[in-house]
Amino acid sequence: MEANTVRLLISCPDKKGIVAAVASFLYENGANIIESGQYTTSHKGGIFFMRIEFEPAGFLLDGKDFYQRFLPIAEKFSFTWRVSFSHKKKRMAVFVTKEEHCLQELLWRWKNGELSVDIPFVISNHDVLRNVVEQFNLEFRKFEVKKDNREKAERELLSFMEGKVDFIVLARYMQILTKGFVDKYRNNIINIHHSFLPAFAGAKPYKQAYERGVKIIGATAHYVTEELDKGSIIEQDVARVSHRDDVKKLKIKGKDIERTVLFKAVKWHMEDRIVVYKNRTIVFV
Amino acid sequence: MEANTVRLLISCPDKKGIVAAVASFLYENGANIIESGQYTTSHKGGIFFMRIEFEPAGFLLDGKDFYQRFLPIAEKFSFTWRVSFSHKKKRMAVFVTKEEHCLQELLWRWKNGELSVDIPFVISNHDVLRNVVEQFNLEFRKFEVKKDNREKAERELLSFMEGKVDFIVLARYMQILTKGFVDKYRNNIINIHHSFLPAFAGAKPYKQAYERGVKIIGATAHYVTEELDKGSIIEQDVARVSHRDDVKKLKIKGKDIERTVLFKAVKWHMEDRIVVYKNRTIVFV
Amino acid sequence: MEANTVRLLISCPDKKGIVAAVASFLYENGANIIESGQYTTSHKGGIFFMRIEFEPAGFLLDGKDFYQRFLPIAEKFSFTWRVSFSHKKKRMAVFVTKEEHCLQELLWRWKNGELSVDIPFVISNHDVLRNVVEQFNLEFRKFEVKKDNREKAERELLSFMEGKVDFIVLARYMQILTKGFVDKYRNNIINIHHSFLPAFAGAKPYKQAYERGVKIIGATAHYVTEELDKGSIIEQDVARVSHRDDVKKLKIKGKDIERTVLFKAVKWHMEDRIVVYKNRTIVFV
Amino acid sequence: MEANTVRLLISCPDKKGIVAAVASFLYENGANIIESGQYTTSHKGGIFFMRIEFEPAGFLLDGKDFYQRFLPIAEKFSFTWRVSFSHKKKRMAVFVTKEEHCLQELLWRWKNGELSVDIPFVISNHDVLRNVVEQFNLEFRKFEVKKDNREKAERELLSFMEGKVDFIVLARYMQILTKGFVDKYRNNIINIHHSFLPAFAGAKPYKQAYERGVKIIGATAHYVTEELDKGSIIEQDVARVSHRDDVKKLKIKGKDIERTVLFKAVKWHMEDRIVVYKNRTIVFV
Repeated sequence: MEANTVRLLISCPDKKGIVAAVASFLYENGANIIESGQYTTSHKGGIFFMRIEFEPAGFLLDGKDFYQRFLPIAEKFSFTWRVSFSHKKKRMAVFVTKEEHCLQELLWRWKNGELSVDIPFVISNHDVLRNVVEQFNLEFRKFEVKKDNREKAERELLSFMEGKVDFIVLARYMQILTKGFVDKYRNNIINIHHSFLPAFAGAKPYKQAYERGVKIIGATAHYVTEELDKGSIIEQDVARVSHRDDVKKLKIKGKDIERTVLFKAVKWHMEDRIVVYKNRTIVFV
Repeated sequence: MEANTVRLLISCPDKKGIVAAVASFLYENGANIIESGQYTTSHKGGIFFMRIEFEPAGFLLDGKDFYQRFLPIAEKFSFTWRVSFSHKKKRMAVFVTKEEHCLQELLWRWKNGELSVDIPFVISNHDVLRNVVEQFNLEFRKFEVKKDNREKAERELLSFMEGKVDFIVLARYMQILTKGFVDKYRNNIINIHHSFLPAFAGAKPYKQAYERGVKIIGATAHYVTEELDKGSIIEQDVARVSHRDDVKKLKIKGKDIERTVLFKAVKWHMEDRIVVYKNRTIVFV
Repeated sequence: MEANTVRLLISCPDKKGIVAAVASFLYENGANIIESGQYTTSHKGGIFFMRIEFEPAGFLLDGKDFYQRFLPIAEKFSFTWRVSFSHKKKRMAVFVTKEEHCLQELLWRWKNGELSVDIPFVISNHDVLRNVVEQFNLEFRKFEVKKDNREKAERELLSFMEGKVDFIVLARYMQILTKGFVDKYRNNIINIHHSFLPAFAGAKPYKQAYERGVKIIGATAHYVTEELDKGSIIEQDVARVSHRDDVKKLKIKGKDIERTVLFKAVKWHMEDRIVVYKNRTIVFV
Repeated sequence: MEANTVRLLISCPDKKGIVAAVASFLYENGANIIESGQYTTSHKGGIFFMRIEFEPAGFLLDGKDFYQRFLPIAEKFSFTWRVSFSHKKKRMAVFVTKEEHCLQELLWRWKNGELSVDIPFVISNHDVLRNVVEQFNLEFRKFEVKKDNREKAERELLSFMEGKVDFIVLARYMQILTKGFVDKYRNNIINIHHSFLPAFAGAKPYKQAYERGVKIIGATAHYVTEELDKGSIIEQDVARVSHRDDVKKLKIKGKDIERTVLFKAVKWHMEDRIVVYKNRTIVFV
């Protein structure tokens, strides 16, 4: 069994003494730092970001205690911060439509122990992937979201998910989410777009790519915002193609990238490695 | 010394018997095929493309004779075709502004024998790269092309180049070419754009890439058309970046990709490996 | 439905007129070439290789007729050759031990229609993957091959497979095959080795890679010969690692490469794209 | 102008409180941390490594003062440590034989300001690269090192370099160095080997790669030890090849990887980003 660890994510205006203060706090409370990453946007007047993962051996694991003890430091340096505990698994809802490969990859990794999350249910606006989901003994729920009932259907969906979900993965979910929905899970909805964004946003990216005659295709995992395919990019990858690849072949080649890019993004999100700042992600890996 | 070879590039409506006809023609005239590539856009009613490279040992090398003998076959199948001879070096003009890396790479490869072209001169709208060029004992010519004298300056430039140039490489040349200029060298002007097109066309692509927060940057070599950064893509490559890379670091990482992508495109053009069809390139490699 | 196609693989001493002869033969018999690749080992006195895929519309599909008609040409040029028909699916046996990822990937692709083969059974020397196999409604057979009963067990295995198998995929099968077994399926057994061969042949390649401190790991698909990990390489791929990756992390990163490299090799084998010559593979893609 | 920075590299048995102690020390002395990296070999009983780069504004820049102040902490935690100052350029000697590409790349980067080192001279056992070196206004020195005079020639070389060189780059230097020589510059001699080590160590790696039929070739930058091609690997990269690439083409493709891999290794060494531990490198990037 993996030891339990605590992950602390901090951002604040850069200033001398932050690392010293945090490291001393952890030391005095008996924590053992096992991973630490820092980043400052610019050397003068920048924003400072830190992710620190530690074993709380001999430390007070309980969330409330941590908050109380850490608060004075957080206030002194005006931290924006959050803390999470590896033994408390995040609850991940997966949204799908008809395409199987991204869902399959996530469930498979989850079953193999590579994704340490709980999956309360998989949501879809179609029935075709019910079998795939139920083979993993997971709940499959259909919500018939469409253009003309979107707001109503989303209300039902939100009500269904209320209190049961920490973040959402759109594993080739072919519906747009309204601003209202996005606001409820701000920076907690991950989408996989099947192009190298910002190229080929919107519908049919492989067709667009074919028509533009690109020599490399890509996939992009990003946080969802109210603007289609404009949210902060978490991860991207690419594959080489040639004039011999028609749209069908692009799709097949693209699927493999989509699978791995989405998995990476989900894993990093799950491990609290991502901070969003001004529509850019800082990823501590 | 490399043996002399002949390169034959053909396109036509797909039809049975084309390969048989061309291969038999070459065999009957004593040619020895050393490389051959084919591609058909689609299996029903598609366009057929072929590149064939052969040693003309015992064959009639002279251009005119080849034309005469090959014409009946070309007419029978309605070929669009061209032929070139490896011992007749293409004449390559390089256009630059102030950035050195692409120019340097090309000249270095040329000096090392990796680019088998003649370079009659390097054209620039600035003086800063004169030394680089003259170190290679090449002619450097300044033409002060600007927004407000573009047409006049281009006329002088075209007149200067008249009869001396087969193709042009824009090795980070920061001026737009008019349609009139492009028409003179249609599909014979190669540009390197410092982004993964169609993403970040236009000015300051690295700044655009930074602001969008992409995780991968790229470079694109393409033929120049009258529409900025819209011409047929010849080659692309990418490099992984992270939130730690500011615009300056993106530029440095990008330079390395620009160098190699441009070189590849120039080499393939030089070896007659590229056919443009409907704004897409077929590259026989 | 994909149209039926015929694949013809030829090798012979290089000579003028081969392409003309083959292309003319196909044309005269009404075939429509849809893909064609050639390669010669060296320009003087080399060996010529050709793969040609064609639609036999109006052509005589039947194997015997093809053989009879093609024989005179084959004899004239001393061809070594083979022919296959895309509508006649190859029968692929998969051998596994305990690791799941390669098997899972192959079965998934097969189910999705990306691998056009029949799978008569999956063979294992352990029981752990029985469930995975049976979920796909495939036969799972256990043969307890061990060091001390290898020859006897292999005899039983060969007898069981007799007449039912065209090629074998070792999807992380942790037993050595004897020369006798290999001879029966020469160039028809594909293994995935979890290193960048020839580096780290033999046992525990990820441990070896960790200890050597490499910055890139790899996977290699190759044909099996009687010498361990020495057979002709079909495909390789790599992933970047760092000092932060311990053996466990290398294994996880490696699995993803193993999956895709093995799949590619199997697909190319299935499509008759591979020729083995002097322990090197010529892959027509 | 880049601000001056101090780089502190520490290793010691892992223990709670190290980061707190170092960060507090820096804070109390007015330093501003601009980059910080940590790594522990294993969570229980491991070795801890840290690289910290800081602006010494208001801090005591002078080496001696730093040593005096830092000593108590270093002793308390049994640090192995070293400190360097970015404004004090390292002195880099380059050793070459006849191949130009690696030397050219390094000198070009150096001229462009990408390598912030002093180059007191370039050493060679041949004359062919004299011109390349002198074009950059650098001193070129020939030492005729051969098998039968190695020890004597090395003595002369060492005596010539005495006090003038911080580290050595073997940019395709085709002579073996004796243990005595290596000892003088332990972990300060970087070699580029033209293969993906440990595959194809020793002579003619591209020929070896061709004969083994690999589908990917590589290059490896490593520190030199007395055992040929066995030293700690700093960086590696690869390029895809096919059966079409003969030894000559492998060499050409390989050159591009060699150039960039060597450059990266030299840059990281120059910036004190590399720690060697048990024949593995920890690279803080």
